[in-house]
Amino acid sequence: MSPLLESYAAGRWFRADGEGEPLLDAATGEEVARLARRGPDVAEMVRHARETGGPALRALTFHERAGLLKALAKHLTERKEELYALSVRTGATSRDTAVDVDGGIGTLFSYASKGVRELPNDTIVLDGGVERLGKGGTFAGRHVYASRPGVAVQINAFNFPVWGMLEKLAPAFLAGLPSIVKPASQTAYVTELAVRQIIESGLLPEGTLQLLAGSPDGLLDRLTVQDSVAFTGSAHTAGILRRHPNVLDGGVRLGVEADSLNCSILGPDVRPDDPEFDLFVKGVVTEMTVKAGQKCTAIRRALVPAPLAERVTEAIAARLAKITVGDPRNPDVRMGALASLGQRAEVRKAVEALRAAGEVVAGDPAGAGPLLDGDPERGAFMTPVLLRARPGAAEPHEVEPFGPVATVLAYDGVDEAVGLAARGRGSLAASVVTHDPDVARTVVRGLAPWHGRVLVLDRDDAKESTGHGSPLPTLVHGGPGRAGGGEELGGIRGVLGHMQRTAVQASPGLLTAVTGTWTPGADRTVSGAHPFRKPLADLRLGDTIASEPRTVTLDDIAHFAEFTGDTFYAHTDPEAAARNPLFGGIVAHGYLVVSLAAGLFVDPAPGPVLANFGVDGLRFLTPVKAGDSIAVTLTVKQITPRSGADYGEVRWDAVVTNQDGEPVATYDVLTLVAKTWP
Amino acid sequence: MSPLLESYAAGRWFRADGEGEPLLDAATGEEVARLARRGPDVAEMVRHARETGGPALRALTFHERAGLLKALAKHLTERKEELYALSVRTGATSRDTAVDVDGGIGTLFSYASKGVRELPNDTIVLDGGVERLGKGGTFAGRHVYASRPGVAVQINAFNFPVWGMLEKLAPAFLAGLPSIVKPASQTAYVTELAVRQIIESGLLPEGTLQLLAGSPDGLLDRLTVQDSVAFTGSAHTAGILRRHPNVLDGGVRLGVEADSLNCSILGPDVRPDDPEFDLFVKGVVTEMTVKAGQKCTAIRRALVPAPLAERVTEAIAARLAKITVGDPRNPDVRMGALASLGQRAEVRKAVEALRAAGEVVAGDPAGAGPLLDGDPERGAFMTPVLLRARPGAAEPHEVEPFGPVATVLAYDGVDEAVGLAARGRGSLAASVVTHDPDVARTVVRGLAPWHGRVLVLDRDDAKESTGHGSPLPTLVHGGPGRAGGGEELGGIRGVLGHMQRTAVQASPGLLTAVTGTWTPGADRTVSGAHPFRKPLADLRLGDTIASEPRTVTLDDIAHFAEFTGDTFYAHTDPEAAARNPLFGGIVAHGYLVVSLAAGLFVDPAPGPVLANFGVDGLRFLTPVKAGDSIAVTLTVKQITPRSGADYGEVRWDAVVTNQDGEPVATYDVLTLVAKTWP
Repeated sequence: MSPLLESYAAGRWFRADGEGEPLLDAATGEEVARLARRGPDVAEMVRHARETGGPALRALTFHERAGLLKALAKHLTERKEELYALSVRTGATSRDTAVDVDGGIGTLFSYASKGVRELPNDTIVLDGGVERLGKGGTFAGRHVYASRPGVAVQINAFNFPVWGMLEKLAPAFLAGLPSIVKPASQTAYVTELAVRQIIESGLLPEGTLQLLAGSPDGLLDRLTVQDSVAFTGSAHTAGILRRHPNVLDGGVRLGVEADSLNCSILGPDVRPDDPEFDLFVKGVVTEMTVKAGQKCTAIRRALVPAPLAERVTEAIAARLAKITVGDPRNPDVRMGALASLGQRAEVRKAVEALRAAGEVVAGDPAGAGPLLDGDPERGAFMTPVLLRARPGAAEPHEVEPFGPVATVLAYDGVDEAVGLAARGRGSLAASVVTHDPDVARTVVRGLAPWHGRVLVLDRDDAKESTGHGSPLPTLVHGGPGRAGGGEELGGIRGVLGHMQRTAVQASPGLLTAVTGTWTPGADRTVSGAHPFRKPLADLRLGDTIASEPRTVTLDDIAHFAEFTGDTFYAHTDPEAAARNPLFGGIVAHGYLVVSLAAGLFVDPAPGPVLANFGVDGLRFLTPVKAGDSIAVTLTVKQITPRSGADYGEVRWDAVVTNQDGEPVATYDVLTLVAKTWP
Repeated sequence: MSPLLESYAAGRWFRADGEGEPLLDAATGEEVARLARRGPDVAEMVRHARETGGPALRALTFHERAGLLKALAKHLTERKEELYALSVRTGATSRDTAVDVDGGIGTLFSYASKGVRELPNDTIVLDGGVERLGKGGTFAGRHVYASRPGVAVQINAFNFPVWGMLEKLAPAFLAGLPSIVKPASQTAYVTELAVRQIIESGLLPEGTLQLLAGSPDGLLDRLTVQDSVAFTGSAHTAGILRRHPNVLDGGVRLGVEADSLNCSILGPDVRPDDPEFDLFVKGVVTEMTVKAGQKCTAIRRALVPAPLAERVTEAIAARLAKITVGDPRNPDVRMGALASLGQRAEVRKAVEALRAAGEVVAGDPAGAGPLLDGDPERGAFMTPVLLRARPGAAEPHEVEPFGPVATVLAYDGVDEAVGLAARGRGSLAASVVTHDPDVARTVVRGLAPWHGRVLVLDRDDAKESTGHGSPLPTLVHGGPGRAGGGEELGGIRGVLGHMQRTAVQASPGLLTAVTGTWTPGADRTVSGAHPFRKPLADLRLGDTIASEPRTVTLDDIAHFAEFTGDTFYAHTDPEAAARNPLFGGIVAHGYLVVSLAAGLFVDPAPGPVLANFGVDGLRFLTPVKAGDSIAVTLTVKQITPRSGADYGEVRWDAVVTNQDGEPVATYDVLTLVAKTWP
């Protein structure tokens, strides 16, 4: 008898009493592991996450959390062969496993990178700019995202035991939420191994990842307003979760990513000898057969211009005929087994329902066809099945076969194509294969409200395209309506989705204190020492340089024009400039203004300021004319030490004013500043 | 008998059969209007919104929609006296009505302004930048927000019959969603008048606003995945809506903004003679008495440092004693009537429940006290009631008195204050009155996950502060948990909340077509004519200037340093520059690089390009050294005609490269370009 899977709960591995139920190899039917129904004390797990994991995690800045994710990704990369070896038992080919394991690790790397590049080295995130709330400038507002002192519960699907966990873990971890992972039974042994590798690494703070191998009974009962549940799976189970009183009335956030009836549309512009024709056919076949079609993003409906329907159907069928099915241990096998015999029975039932809408044009719904090394009795094998629907049929838009099954539907005109897509009542992903800009624009804009992701495939992107069915860490994953209404990933969007957005209103001074970012209107500190002499460790928000004025002469403008070659008439031709509706006469170049401003604020001697690496949000507000006198005020707005480097970034608020005190130009200057000096 | 209120449904005013139920003046008990239970055919209303209102609205760009909101705001401003005259019958003083009517109109103005300034003159919104999805640059991703082809149903509360409608209408309208408004019974006559004024204006496209004066029975049954319901009211009713099958399983989006037990915290730093002490007391009294405390954002819990609890309680009680209660027609009345006798009975019941937790220290829960012009029998008058809770009492965190009632609770230390606030299990708004930056930072960061809005009040912002209880159009309104978990307003955030976010993946060329914004990697069109010669109408995305190269000499750098005064050592001192870890020798000023680039791309003669008004996202990527040769490529990225002006904005993608083709600097150049020329 194989061993019982263990849970990792409250800081230790837990093995249930009793024998548990066997989990079988999808291809051979052999027992892989056993899973007990009774798991550890869920109340203790929630308490541990709240009291140990959460506080430890939220004591770290986003950059520190990102650093841990990167280290974790490297650790798992080193040990991925173990995961591959075990994953084959789920029926997955190594290509399938790459999607799961490498895809999961890639998601960690992506979040590690985005966390450092796009989040502050702080524990809150600013959202949008400062809103001036009073004319006098003494009352301002700003939005922040704050970490929630709760727990993120993951209820994952069986098809991606590694990616499914990591794509939920990474954004929650960055957001400061500890995770409790509940894997699907069929493939829980792969998740258990991955969690073991993570726990053994010792990288994540204790309590930030727990594994519940067993029933989640009672788990939702323990959750409250700061907790969330992220569920991937069937609409049916999602409905049960939505009905839990703590979700309905207790403020528990529920995110759902449910299977959906995704479609791919062949553009009306495509002719049989266009490369897009083959791309469409290949795309449908790939989506039907990768993971044996057990992907919530797989193409279930192939929408084809009516005149091409026959030809496309034949081409897909011909290509499907070449797909070798069998034991995924055999490297010649293109499509392995479904996850279980029960799963196959479900898919066959769905195919039966779809037959009411049309006919089977490829594959044998009842059989497994010729197998490479597979046992048709004990292994959950199935041939890919293609159907061709009658016009107006309802079933293809209602029945989801979670396996290697798709239906071809004919359409007339792009409006009908979009209309048919919408009959899926909300899907995760759609694709349109076209090389026509107008078709792309019309179809994508029509599909967008019904989908979380839309892929446009053509000869230009085909080589690099990741395909219809691949969620990417940088793009949102989820969809409206039937697809669950949730949203995951999407880079930092997925992190913010775990946080609470709050509007803060305060005086500029206290808003500076709360947000850690200098707010216009707050005090400026002009002291003896030039702030360019201060290393990062000594700089303070509000440290300011207020320059002397400098008069801009007509000679300066003429000289600058000649020197740079920027002889735009508004700087060189008094009569033409006088006719310009905005200037009414010669004006200084905007670039001259900011160049002179730099001359006014720079402290020239070597010091901790290493470089100016950029400028943000430069706006020229008032023209500078010959004889005007400009001065600049430069104030420390944000200080971001870089982890693992001996310098950090300083964002300076720059305001150039004229002799009347009017703002001439405003912008942010970005510098790199050494942490210590000398 | 007063007239039955009418619905505006499917393009006409509808009056139900029968007599309906009387709606009574809150202060006098006289009948104001009657409301029938049976309303118009809701299926027809939904169809009308979907088929007439929605398509008409979505045919307009965001700027056009914003223009209509502005015109509407002006129209209502001209007619607001009518609204004031009717509003008094709800028990509202004219100060209360200002919050409702002027607040509602102000929300329209705010959205009109934000719609033009912060949204494109298009029908989709881009979210974030381009994500490079392949190393070769042929596959890219970008997020867009698309309008949903659905209906926005508003179910409003009785307390703000005008603002409640307009604050939901404005963002939905901008988002392209037609609204069906269901006002609360008690004050539906005010909403009906406002809708009449709007319909009579003829400004909004037919079908974008409908009024349902009557039962909403069957309305939710008609809604599907592209529709949404925005509800403001009790947690109880919210629970009923959440249980509707179309919400649970049908993908209807439900946003809830429910009453909550908001708190105000007096900072531990405040002493009795600090201005913050009085600000706190005034704030509590204002929130208790404006709208007779019938605001979902009102302060229900006053958290006070234990040593000051007695003193604060006395000060609030003393101030409350000066509040004159009575008929709001009397200008000396500070607090009018509750909305109805039934409402008053509810509040009295809540006060009874709160008495279990402590004692009444001001006001008479059972009586109305001395009245100015009010009839204590027929008018729903009530004195403000202040309670003082025993330590550890649960009721103040559970029982919401929706009237002029608050409870004082003592705390020890900021952690306990935040802990007590959290016992409200999620609220709309909190405030902290402090002048200490550390207190502000700690308390706000602690409160943030539990609130949608946090106000910091001190001597600096008090004069301009809009107060604890005022949602503002530019800041989000809503809160987690008990407050409903919804989010409204917040400027453009409220618009995007009505739209679907979708990730689009495509080749740069087709991504350009879909998004209407030139995407790096897409074709650049270099034709004979310099794009600066083309007026807005002739410019096309991808139009490009590719400049000749220019060598940057050591003399150029030295000269620029001398001319501008920017003698930073990296530009002037070879030895010191050599020691700079990033440069390793003399480098050109970043400002010199962009100035020379302008010289390379500018076309000097008068033409349609009127001005360069800014630069965005400038990053210096590779240092430019003496002898390097730079060239610039400038490409039309985005074209935004301004409605009602003879010019528009053009955003140019600028890339400066060196002789090795390495990017030296990248940025966006912003210009104003005349629509036609000459």
